Amino acid sequence: GSASLGLKKLRIGMIPADGVGREVLPAAQRILEALGSRIPKPEFTHLDAGFEYFTRHGEALPQETVAAMQNDVDCALFGAVGSPTRKVTGYSSPIVALRKKLNLYANVRPVHSINGIDPRHVDMIIVRENTECLYIKQETLTTTEENGKEARATRLITERASKQIGRMAFRIALARARPEQPAGLTIVHKSNVLSTTDGLFRESVRAVMQENPDWSDASKIVVGEQIVDSMVYRMFREPEAFDVVVAPNLYGDILSDAAAALVGSLGLVPSINAGDTFVMGEPVHGTAPDIAGLGIVNPVAAIRSAALMLDHLGYTEPAKQIEEAVVDVLKEGVRTKDLGGSATTEEVVAAIEKRL
Amino acid sequence: GSASLGLKKLRIGMIPADGVGREVLPAAQRILEALGSRIPKPEFTHLDAGFEYFTRHGEALPQETVAAMQNDVDCALFGAVGSPTRKVTGYSSPIVALRKKLNLYANVRPVHSINGIDPRHVDMIIVRENTECLYIKQETLTTTEENGKEARATRLITERASKQIGRMAFRIALARARPEQPAGLTIVHKSNVLSTTDGLFRESVRAVMQENPDWSDASKIVVGEQIVDSMVYRMFREPEAFDVVVAPNLYGDILSDAAAALVGSLGLVPSINAGDTFVMGEPVHGTAPDIAGLGIVNPVAAIRSAALMLDHLGYTEPAKQIEEAVVDVLKEGVRTKDLGGSATTEEVVAAIEKRL
Ligand SMILES: CC(C)[C@H](C(=O)O)[C@@H](O)C(=O)O
Ligand SMILES: CC(C)[C@H](C(=O)O)[C@@H](O)C(=O)O
Repeated sequence: GSASLGLKKLRIGMIPADGVGREVLPAAQRILEALGSRIPKPEFTHLDAGFEYFTRHGEALPQETVAAMQNDVDCALFGAVGSPTRKVTGYSSPIVALRKKLNLYANVRPVHSINGIDPRHVDMIIVRENTECLYIKQETLTTTEENGKEARATRLITERASKQIGRMAFRIALARARPEQPAGLTIVHKSNVLSTTDGLFRESVRAVMQENPDWSDASKIVVGEQIVDSMVYRMFREPEAFDVVVAPNLYGDILSDAAAALVGSLGLVPSINAGDTFVMGEPVHGTAPDIAGLGIVNPVAAIRSAALMLDHLGYTEPAKQIEEAVVDVLKEGVRTKDLGGSATTEEVVAAIEKRL
Repeated sequence: GSASLGLKKLRIGMIPADGVGREVLPAAQRILEALGSRIPKPEFTHLDAGFEYFTRHGEALPQETVAAMQNDVDCALFGAVGSPTRKVTGYSSPIVALRKKLNLYANVRPVHSINGIDPRHVDMIIVRENTECLYIKQETLTTTEENGKEARATRLITERASKQIGRMAFRIALARARPEQPAGLTIVHKSNVLSTTDGLFRESVRAVMQENPDWSDASKIVVGEQIVDSMVYRMFREPEAFDVVVAPNLYGDILSDAAAALVGSLGLVPSINAGDTFVMGEPVHGTAPDIAGLGIVNPVAAIRSAALMLDHLGYTEPAKQIEEAVVDVLKEGVRTKDLGGSATTEEVVAAIEKRL
């Protein structure tokens, strides 16, 4: 989208949340600031959320944060959110809630290897439905004589949301099509077991092909399917066979971690949560409690998430420049511990900054 | 279990079902026959099931097959079942139905690398709950103005089934504990999102620790946890860190394909579906329609499944001999196409047979 082109300033909500989220968001901020006049002057607003916030205030996502996202900022960056190690009454993941409340229906996660560093060629974009599936969190608990406690969760798949994510996937695929080299689009499901829910997902994604002649043109996009278990297997055996991958929420969650493992580290993989009117960048990694606060977390995923966010807003050139700077720095060997290097967060940020 | 020791003959139900299932079960049969007097004389009964059978008879799992499993055989081997590429009214996966009808509540899938062949050290056993989760296949379809079609599936997690699979996992872990080298047991869940269902799974598995002092003895079993997405990531990054892995049905399905990718081929990975009174061996691979009928499918997964089945019945020595013969043959380079070799199914079977 290019809705934000022509802004005087770019108001960015910053939600570091927990753990290393508090280190990688400042890193992304510095890189955005280093772009100077290439983007509208960024204006950062700190917004609260997270498990740590919950332990102090009794809520993980304050209403002010949601309201600010809806009214006061043009886009946002999210850090990472901690998970309680035991069931905590009243706690519910703020990232899952934000995705739903702002209808950020698409979670787009590009994963690609770097020539000369990674042994395998990986260049895929995982397009994950972001609002339904088991993430609606409708769960019940009862007790029966036979089974003791019985817990049930509802998995919801709608035609509307599946078509919506399908359209996003086809748009992304079409943009990757080259003359003589059609893009690939793989629909992931488990309709051999879940014939109704996953059957609906598969059918709905296929149905949108008819809405655009380019989408149903096999010289531009080749559509395929994989059952989720077999997809994980094949992703590891022949990652080069996959291009754009579209999946229901939970499968997309698992597949993006699988893809991240192929390119060396979760610390490299960015995402955006995108809706029709708002976009929120978010690194795919978690809070990394073992290294939080040590200044050694890999800032690349967050920096790339900022770039993806810019790209989504129509600032394609500065987004590309960030990505090129990141790749240069990684190739030069300025790498954090997760990549086998010894650079600090600060050293990586400074190196990327210098190149911009 | 050793319930079957002392039998005069071993009655084995053979359900090849679809695709390469029809090639790998005869291979397993030959290996069982090659054991001679080391096991009670095997007596094989062909039993019908599968998608192809469905297209001819309108049912995928005839009642006679279920009745024979319940009354006429001591154990069984299953081949593989095809998945319709479109929703087919009235069709439902016979393997899922069999697991439930016979209460084969544990799907045990050992995955290990072979020294000198595989680059990475993998030695894990995935213990997958086999009767509930989304596999209860309770799905509904409605239509609303807002969403068009709305499909829902129920995910069921019970305390009973979770404890049952937990006990199986602790038993398996304890058997792998060595002096100075405790076994590891990793509980996989997604309780950061599904706090009620996956929360119950996690709690129930942990609760059974108290039933046996050895299970709660950290010098024997070290219990850990992983969120499912992060588990897939870590399984690829550091597979040597995992030993016994226990998971709800769908996560276990995905994790076992992920693990298979680490050891070169799905064609190597066996499983048993085990209940308290019955056991059914089953290769983890599918019907492989691209190579079905060509005589080149890898028979190892099915042969190993037969060995696992024997082991479960108490015939540990012959089971070990099959496994050793398999490893020898693979090390010698007698390998099918999926492993980069050029051996036929027949050549692999003959080579294993010769060593028994
Ligand atoms: C933290 C968790 C709720 C989240 C998810 O499951 O979506 C994370 O794994 C992710 O992938 O963004
Ligand atoms: C064929 C399919 C129903 C089955 C499953 O999902 O359990 C298969 O993937 C397996 O792992 O045995």
